Amino acid sequence: MIKIAICGGSGYTGAELLRILSGHPEVEITAVTSEKSAGKKVTDLFPHLHKYARLVYEPLNKEDVLKKADLFFMALPHGASQEAVDYFFKKGKKVIDLSADYRISDSAVYEEWYKAQHNYTDTLNKAVYGLPELHREEIKKANLIANPGCYPTSAILGLYPAIKEGVIDIESIVVDSKSGASGAGRKADVGFSYCEVNEGFKAYGIGVHRHTPEIEQELSGIAGKKIAINFTPHLVPMDRGIISTMYGKMIKKADTEDILAGYKESYGAEPFVNVLAEGIFPNAKNVRGSNYCEIGLKVNKRTNTLIVVSAIDNLVKGASGQAVQNMNIMMGIKETTALESLAVFP
Amino acid sequence: MIKIAICGGSGYTGAELLRILSGHPEVEITAVTSEKSAGKKVTDLFPHLHKYARLVYEPLNKEDVLKKADLFFMALPHGASQEAVDYFFKKGKKVIDLSADYRISDSAVYEEWYKAQHNYTDTLNKAVYGLPELHREEIKKANLIANPGCYPTSAILGLYPAIKEGVIDIESIVVDSKSGASGAGRKADVGFSYCEVNEGFKAYGIGVHRHTPEIEQELSGIAGKKIAINFTPHLVPMDRGIISTMYGKMIKKADTEDILAGYKESYGAEPFVNVLAEGIFPNAKNVRGSNYCEIGLKVNKRTNTLIVVSAIDNLVKGASGQAVQNMNIMMGIKETTALESLAVFP
Amino acid sequence: MIKIAICGGSGYTGAELLRILSGHPEVEITAVTSEKSAGKKVTDLFPHLHKYARLVYEPLNKEDVLKKADLFFMALPHGASQEAVDYFFKKGKKVIDLSADYRISDSAVYEEWYKAQHNYTDTLNKAVYGLPELHREEIKKANLIANPGCYPTSAILGLYPAIKEGVIDIESIVVDSKSGASGAGRKADVGFSYCEVNEGFKAYGIGVHRHTPEIEQELSGIAGKKIAINFTPHLVPMDRGIISTMYGKMIKKADTEDILAGYKESYGAEPFVNVLAEGIFPNAKNVRGSNYCEIGLKVNKRTNTLIVVSAIDNLVKGASGQAVQNMNIMMGIKETTALESLAVFP
Amino acid sequence: MIKIAICGGSGYTGAELLRILSGHPEVEITAVTSEKSAGKKVTDLFPHLHKYARLVYEPLNKEDVLKKADLFFMALPHGASQEAVDYFFKKGKKVIDLSADYRISDSAVYEEWYKAQHNYTDTLNKAVYGLPELHREEIKKANLIANPGCYPTSAILGLYPAIKEGVIDIESIVVDSKSGASGAGRKADVGFSYCEVNEGFKAYGIGVHRHTPEIEQELSGIAGKKIAINFTPHLVPMDRGIISTMYGKMIKKADTEDILAGYKESYGAEPFVNVLAEGIFPNAKNVRGSNYCEIGLKVNKRTNTLIVVSAIDNLVKGASGQAVQNMNIMMGIKETTALESLAVFP
Repeated sequence: MIKIAICGGSGYTGAELLRILSGHPEVEITAVTSEKSAGKKVTDLFPHLHKYARLVYEPLNKEDVLKKADLFFMALPHGASQEAVDYFFKKGKKVIDLSADYRISDSAVYEEWYKAQHNYTDTLNKAVYGLPELHREEIKKANLIANPGCYPTSAILGLYPAIKEGVIDIESIVVDSKSGASGAGRKADVGFSYCEVNEGFKAYGIGVHRHTPEIEQELSGIAGKKIAINFTPHLVPMDRGIISTMYGKMIKKADTEDILAGYKESYGAEPFVNVLAEGIFPNAKNVRGSNYCEIGLKVNKRTNTLIVVSAIDNLVKGASGQAVQNMNIMMGIKETTALESLAVFP
Repeated sequence: MIKIAICGGSGYTGAELLRILSGHPEVEITAVTSEKSAGKKVTDLFPHLHKYARLVYEPLNKEDVLKKADLFFMALPHGASQEAVDYFFKKGKKVIDLSADYRISDSAVYEEWYKAQHNYTDTLNKAVYGLPELHREEIKKANLIANPGCYPTSAILGLYPAIKEGVIDIESIVVDSKSGASGAGRKADVGFSYCEVNEGFKAYGIGVHRHTPEIEQELSGIAGKKIAINFTPHLVPMDRGIISTMYGKMIKKADTEDILAGYKESYGAEPFVNVLAEGIFPNAKNVRGSNYCEIGLKVNKRTNTLIVVSAIDNLVKGASGQAVQNMNIMMGIKETTALESLAVFP
Repeated sequence: MIKIAICGGSGYTGAELLRILSGHPEVEITAVTSEKSAGKKVTDLFPHLHKYARLVYEPLNKEDVLKKADLFFMALPHGASQEAVDYFFKKGKKVIDLSADYRISDSAVYEEWYKAQHNYTDTLNKAVYGLPELHREEIKKANLIANPGCYPTSAILGLYPAIKEGVIDIESIVVDSKSGASGAGRKADVGFSYCEVNEGFKAYGIGVHRHTPEIEQELSGIAGKKIAINFTPHLVPMDRGIISTMYGKMIKKADTEDILAGYKESYGAEPFVNVLAEGIFPNAKNVRGSNYCEIGLKVNKRTNTLIVVSAIDNLVKGASGQAVQNMNIMMGIKETTALESLAVFP
Repeated sequence: MIKIAICGGSGYTGAELLRILSGHPEVEITAVTSEKSAGKKVTDLFPHLHKYARLVYEPLNKEDVLKKADLFFMALPHGASQEAVDYFFKKGKKVIDLSADYRISDSAVYEEWYKAQHNYTDTLNKAVYGLPELHREEIKKANLIANPGCYPTSAILGLYPAIKEGVIDIESIVVDSKSGASGAGRKADVGFSYCEVNEGFKAYGIGVHRHTPEIEQELSGIAGKKIAINFTPHLVPMDRGIISTMYGKMIKKADTEDILAGYKESYGAEPFVNVLAEGIFPNAKNVRGSNYCEIGLKVNKRTNTLIVVSAIDNLVKGASGQAVQNMNIMMGIKETTALESLAVFP
């Protein structure tokens, strides 16, 4: 049994790690930390996690926690994660960081968008961006995984084959994303109270959302040249799910059928990406609670534009499920272990 | 591997059986029927069930389907189920009927509430009411299970210990229940369209809902005398979940603590019933997508009344999950197999 | 033009007062206070109130605000309201208090349930409970109105004719109420965040909710003897609306038709109470955004129980709309002014 | 009093016309038609319209209805509207058509997108596209108004000033729109049942939605040359509201501030368009139940792209409210009559 610590386990991604890992036969949870909830039982915050009736939050005393586990899921806030990740990593532990701190390989870009210095660039250089569909081989050998953001997972998976094949004009890319409210985390905030979110819909962070450079980094890597995108996130009155609708002007002439064939080839062996048949498009509801990503697309001949739509559950494939997928790959466990549950529909 | 047929598999309970059984190591689905969707793939209706990519709905040709399976889940509409259940049962198959047709042991009561004759009273006499917490020993030996209704599951589990112990006046019982919209099934009906249900809340079927005699039958069985109840269902703008709030005048003087102790003793060994600590009450969200039932209670000293609240997911513990639990018990499989997933929260 | 001040105008009831009064031809808003939002524009918090583009929150400096208005709507938190109400009242102003501070005429009962002393019992004695359907004549002459709570409005209107006519056993009353989330006010609180409320349903405050004594006071007044009730509030995943489902054992034999006739007679002249035809029951959605109350009922012959269901919008008839109705009555304005908008459906 | 007939009054736009007109001092409803609901009371379908307790649906017998009214709101399905509109128009009545039948001035384009012939092109030539912000002067003189579609209203208002000023490359336009479920109308359809829509989010009609040519027609008219756009509608789990997020590559260099100034100038005198301050963006919730349109925008300097977001209530400014606005303009009534209610928030 692999001993697992979850640092920062009182939020939704922490709870989701516990939910998913409750069905994993090769791990045991040996520590879960929270500063604010230290001393409380996990079930005080999350009654649905009743299998963990004896698990109690402890403060993140690094020396103590270090001894308790082999692999560390870090679900701390951005900024706070930097040092703790560095510590466990340098002590020789496997680390999967769900924060943004180790996702941006260029620390200058990190500093520009996160308005904070990166103090551990040596460790940053060792981090692997944990999107298995792009970086599986590196993940196998990695000791530190920067687990991708939720929007970036949906956008990069949606655009990867099109950019790899040079199908679209990389100066024309629009990523219009829509997320359920759990993407904002578990917090006391009037703006995320029920009555403010329900029966509403809005864009936010237009042109300035921090997931922008993360998407651009990976798309640029695929293209082999710098890409800047328009990224607009929106808040949807639902708990979970991200739909990204992406637009790019076609460079080559091609039919929907052709592009779909390329996508199916790209993702044919992927256990968690379902490319849908022509005329069928994703629905956030079809992936709710699951680690699957749905992708559908269409070539608009009238405007010569490729339109791709992707759907994931932001807390699973967009966070904790992908983190477990990365763990499985790193640890040589069957990649799909604990991740094959179908979506809870309706 | 047990071969499974699902008759009437195009509704939500059929889809939920497929979802749950996708994680069951000892079964394989060999047939799924639907008259309206015959010839369509399961994934045409339910893209989230992509593991069943090759499964196609067939019409319920009884002779054909008979040969394909060992155990039959019947998810046909009330009335339509009678004959098909009788057929498979008499052919020596194990049958779990999710309709109401075999739940009411007194056919006169059935006929009064369902406005239809019961034509198979010999088979009706063999049916076991499939609530494991009350009838586990009979289920073990049964070949025909009448799988309980969703409201009755929530109400009976909530009141069982109180009635068994003679705590409340059986002439004073109020069951005020609230259900998510999936309880109405998957159908084209203006009254269940999004805009009619969302941001609304209403009572319906006051005093005449068909689950009334089912609840009364089981409560009467526990009490050893006839019980008539006030049962009022309500429609909640959510997909899944039932909360039943139940009231009964106390006969004996007792504290919340005393009654809770009795409940904990009654349900101590039950794998799917969680009796909550004093001061904690159930939330439909804590059981969503899971087979668990939460129960909380309080004695109101000012009015000398016991108030019990129970929560289940109507599609899982209230239908398909309980059906799989019954199957496990009947087939000598570990009772919790495929049913231990924790709720998807949030 | 009547000059209006709203003290405590940064919550939902304050905003709702502004919305309703924006259509009132005989008033002008001359001050709106908020400690936390002092200096901000009303539209900074509530962009939908764009007609008040020049209105700015000011701190509640009583001497300053006193001069600005003739009539004061007090929407301060319970406790905080006591002194401010007393001040404006003693200065000779008309005051409508939306807090609970002046609703309970017996200060000992107030102190028991609100865990706070009442320091202005002389003023308390002058307050009129502002439910026009019961106390219209007193309201006409009052200078201080205690505007009813949302649950009490729904419960009292639902039970008034039945209790007045002595139809039900007053020891058997159950009030099972369900409210949308706006009833909790506008606040940063994890428990009322979108992801905790949405797709959930729960009871809370069982047997201890502070609206209990308020309902009991008015019902006792109608009956002419002390009534204690079972009151259980629940949280519904919707913005607005309260449905109360009420149960009482019948003393007299009567049909649904008879009781309905009594209700129609009681409420025949009431502009805001709609007693529904036999077989029709209220829906929170039918009153959303409006000042109307819907009532439906049924006699359950099997259990000899009267079941009444009422629906209101908690922010309108349950708070700000009723406050404006009280203002109209007090000021000799046509009672329905600014209150005749039909519900926004769907 | 203007006598009003509503033809096709059993859907949401019909009900919304009745709701809005209930507050209009210069009209009376003299007929409301429905084939399916003929003989039923309006309140049988819509209890919230209790002010119309005596209004009964009649079948659309054109000769009969002709005599009853001066002005006809036509809320019939597309296709069915053609002939009835032509009839009332040729009989000299004022007609406001809420269907799409008279919106597309080029009948060949209509026939291509609606797969139906236009049999009344002489009448089509007389129709004025009823978007007051673009065509107020023509509306004043018109006898036949083609009331705009909901998506087109949101898109055209969002892009009008930018295209008029030549700010963006007209070959680069993306309109990514999101609508609440009431846009689909009131109907029995599994795809719009509560459990299918709730907690889901999806794109539909990508590249083929019938509102595309309507948007293109008006944008082309503004630009003075043919425009083809990418238009992708999405379904949001909420009752009402449309948010359109629009993208266009900048031709001229300009700051957000400059473009905003142009928008404010364009819409300065408009009673129902609110251009928001820099950094503030629309929310569907802020316009719910109201006739207002909110617009916010931003220039993304990194990609040289203008991003505009608009919000309307699809049933009000996107349908029935705009129809009443057109009526007011046509009839010489103050344009804002019955339309000044603020949004119901929350």
